[in-house]
Amino acid sequence: MNPILNKLKISLPEGVISFSPEDLERCSHDKYIGASNPPQAVAFPSDTQQIATILQFANTHQIPVTPRGAGVGYCGGATPVRNGIVLSLERMNQILEISSEDFIVITQPGVITAQLQAEVEKKGLFYPPDPAGRAESSIGGNISTNAGGPRCLKYGVTRDYILGLTVVLADGTICYLGGRTHKNKTGFDLCRFFVGAEGMLGIVTEAILKLIPLPPFRACLSAGFLSMTDAAKAIRSVFRSGLLPSAMELADKFTLQAAWKRTGSDIFKDSGAHLILELDGQEQSVCAEILQAHEHLLRAGARSLQIARGNNECENIWAIRREFSYGLRDTGLKKINHDIVIPRGKLEEYFEFTDSLQQKYGIPIACFGHAGDGNIHTNIMIKPDNQQQTEISRELTQAIFQQVLNWGGKITGEHGIGLSKLPWWELATTPEERLLHQRIKKALDPQNILNPGKFIQND
Amino acid sequence: MNPILNKLKISLPEGVISFSPEDLERCSHDKYIGASNPPQAVAFPSDTQQIATILQFANTHQIPVTPRGAGVGYCGGATPVRNGIVLSLERMNQILEISSEDFIVITQPGVITAQLQAEVEKKGLFYPPDPAGRAESSIGGNISTNAGGPRCLKYGVTRDYILGLTVVLADGTICYLGGRTHKNKTGFDLCRFFVGAEGMLGIVTEAILKLIPLPPFRACLSAGFLSMTDAAKAIRSVFRSGLLPSAMELADKFTLQAAWKRTGSDIFKDSGAHLILELDGQEQSVCAEILQAHEHLLRAGARSLQIARGNNECENIWAIRREFSYGLRDTGLKKINHDIVIPRGKLEEYFEFTDSLQQKYGIPIACFGHAGDGNIHTNIMIKPDNQQQTEISRELTQAIFQQVLNWGGKITGEHGIGLSKLPWWELATTPEERLLHQRIKKALDPQNILNPGKFIQND
Repeated sequence: MNPILNKLKISLPEGVISFSPEDLERCSHDKYIGASNPPQAVAFPSDTQQIATILQFANTHQIPVTPRGAGVGYCGGATPVRNGIVLSLERMNQILEISSEDFIVITQPGVITAQLQAEVEKKGLFYPPDPAGRAESSIGGNISTNAGGPRCLKYGVTRDYILGLTVVLADGTICYLGGRTHKNKTGFDLCRFFVGAEGMLGIVTEAILKLIPLPPFRACLSAGFLSMTDAAKAIRSVFRSGLLPSAMELADKFTLQAAWKRTGSDIFKDSGAHLILELDGQEQSVCAEILQAHEHLLRAGARSLQIARGNNECENIWAIRREFSYGLRDTGLKKINHDIVIPRGKLEEYFEFTDSLQQKYGIPIACFGHAGDGNIHTNIMIKPDNQQQTEISRELTQAIFQQVLNWGGKITGEHGIGLSKLPWWELATTPEERLLHQRIKKALDPQNILNPGKFIQND
Repeated sequence: MNPILNKLKISLPEGVISFSPEDLERCSHDKYIGASNPPQAVAFPSDTQQIATILQFANTHQIPVTPRGAGVGYCGGATPVRNGIVLSLERMNQILEISSEDFIVITQPGVITAQLQAEVEKKGLFYPPDPAGRAESSIGGNISTNAGGPRCLKYGVTRDYILGLTVVLADGTICYLGGRTHKNKTGFDLCRFFVGAEGMLGIVTEAILKLIPLPPFRACLSAGFLSMTDAAKAIRSVFRSGLLPSAMELADKFTLQAAWKRTGSDIFKDSGAHLILELDGQEQSVCAEILQAHEHLLRAGARSLQIARGNNECENIWAIRREFSYGLRDTGLKKINHDIVIPRGKLEEYFEFTDSLQQKYGIPIACFGHAGDGNIHTNIMIKPDNQQQTEISRELTQAIFQQVLNWGGKITGEHGIGLSKLPWWELATTPEERLLHQRIKKALDPQNILNPGKFIQND
């Protein structure tokens, strides 16, 4: 243990700084299983001032600080590479204000996403970003990775809902950025600059989020297609009609086969691709538009087509999507989970490409995800504890990332770089981009105390 | 003239660097009438490499560079305070690619906004941001001020449509940021950081913009109310129903009176407030929803209510809004034009406040604008060349800005700080915010050559 941390402990209220082995162990990793490293202390601040105190101290003594939301990230973004302090935001879990007049919610970063959504919906308001892990992810974590989700097709990502942030900089300076207005052109857009920064530029201690009116109704289609080509044709046809679904989620054959083995449901058995399409808005509009979408899918060759109206029926459709993950888990294989993005028009080619890789390497690649915006969750399925397959999985990752980048795609759409994608950071960026990152990092965190050892190589 | 500029001229193709008095005069100001200052040269580059050459040269010789879009900003953002070079992007006016598959347009910065919109709409695609000046503003200018417009209520502002930017930094480094994917979590969100930076962090030389499917239909309501209170009630009731109009534009009594004098139309004569509400989407949905909105406005006390369906009829309604500006011009008074933003719930109080100021100071204040997002164009109407009224207008501006800030509002929602709001920059920001601006500016433009003399005081 670093004895100097005792000094920090004494300057804060009881219980803020913990050295307990349980806390150190729990905060030594997130959901990324590839890395784990215990911090020397875990801080559980309950207000902005305490965070300022911690950072000022850490900056003076050059102690690394790794911020931690709910710890459910997939990439090791919250793993403390350089030990030091893990700064957990879990006690800052209060919703401070919901304003139906101003269409905003003011929240602390530790609030769980789904809980915030439920609270604002009670008042007829809507916070659209819906990362798959929203039942356990926190708003602070969502901000640090600019989290997306199915509904981002229509509604945009986390960044698009950030109106104001309270941020503590590396040296302990507290900045109030943005505010409760829906527009703001006062100077640089500093507020949104901290969104997606993976905890490397400052600690978000309060957020003012934009809300919109809650759409009163939703409806879904669940459609099976013979091939990805047919499904892609259907998606194009829906867009061409001017419809903007709130979600369009696609799954490939391997995923469907696994789901079929699990459920025995024929909808999965004969399908080469499965599409979930959701529309929301006024009831009458949604009902008319879902029939239009139904027509488009039929004409594109949908072989099974189920319609769901209203919340309960839609949730049943989304339960199908959850079977995808369970089905993959049932295979007993280990999932190497990527969240690549391709230009929207490359969908078919991408699935053909992963198909050819599967055939070449003999390792399944299960793809599903946000087809509407080209963000495809790509799961390399390997035998656990199999050294050879582990090596091949790295080769596959390399091949996938390289192809995605060649198409003008990106290696991550929602999860971030963290540690899991760090080996490909140089592949995914230009030297000019990396230099720009470094210049900004140095301006804001010259001692490099915030989440060091990640994609900024300042030292 | 600075003789060193001859060296730059010779290193670039003929016609790129101009010293002609006409060019110097034309580029000495934008639409802000409060400031004008001739540059020593105007550069008309036609590609990114030329811009890199210019900036590298300027950086080496510490020559100020003021970027210029279409020169139609309201705030003097393009006015070259420190002489030097005005870098006009007007020759970079090509749309490079429109992709219906990827839902993007790749454009040079000098393309006129309305022209870009018309081109993508021909392909069934939609670029929503619609600043009032879009018939003459350029995409580059829109990016530098993060331009908004009526439709931003539903669709968000310019920033929300920026997927990729080519940016030349102050030292001439060319950075390719973002790309043609709709999501991207590779490192910091650098690409959007240059949006709204008023040309102080880099020069945008190419942009990849997100497009969405073109909504096939639109309808409008034009409604007169007895009072702002009634109109505000109507707006609240529309939001509460879950409707999200593409625009909700409000005008106050002074504006309406001026429009009445101009047009003789009774719709203006008896109204204390006028609301334009637009919905877009599928025809059947829009027709049903516009009737819903009609009901809400009626119940909130609309005294006149006109409905418009389809493009042509809607454009007639929007022509009404143009009468507002003409009506104000007809008064013969000089408009001091502000674009404040207040939290959405403060609408009534804001109009009461400007009303009380008018009574107190005896100077009219005409308000109209984007009520849906609290962004109200506030025009102080003074006698031209009247010293006393000019002084009072400053006092009024101060009073308005102070009250807006007290409510948690902002002094600018769309136009930017430029020169016109520079005197209130310190009022509108905290010392921490200003320091953060300076740190970032210094990291990216250490010589302070990019648009110096504006809201960054680095020297």
